[in-house]
Amino acid sequence: MEKDILIEFGKTLRRLRTEKSISQENFAAICNLHRTYISDVELGKRNVSLENIKRMADALQMNISELFMEVEK
Amino acid sequence: MEKDILIEFGKTLRRLRTEKSISQENFAAICNLHRTYISDVELGKRNVSLENIKRMADALQMNISELFMEVEK
Repeated sequence: MEKDILIEFGKTLRRLRTEKSISQENFAAICNLHRTYISDVELGKRNVSLENIKRMADALQMNISELFMEVEK
Repeated sequence: MEKDILIEFGKTLRRLRTEKSISQENFAAICNLHRTYISDVELGKRNVSLENIKRMADALQMNISELFMEVEK
């Protein structure tokens, strides 16, 4: 189901962000997005857009394909 | 820039769809999306959401990571 991908994406984003010891606030600032938006994405509550996926991948210093390899693992 | 990813995604989607000889109309039907929406995505005019990226990857019988490997190539 499509909803599941939002949950898996959010969990993976949280894992990768915390592995890099970046706070939600700092991560939001790097992405130029709101902290509450990042929080909602990490909880699978937002149907994140491709432009924002790109910002988040950039903030994690990963390609989008590398980010989704982590999501799909 | 984030806009570029929409253009690259659209171009790649069109290439992969036509390589599989799927018409825009059939592709839209498989994805349960409108043909005009698919057309706009292929032209880089839509900031496609993760749920719809998942539908399109499924329709191409690819993982999202595989789809973005093609986008980033």
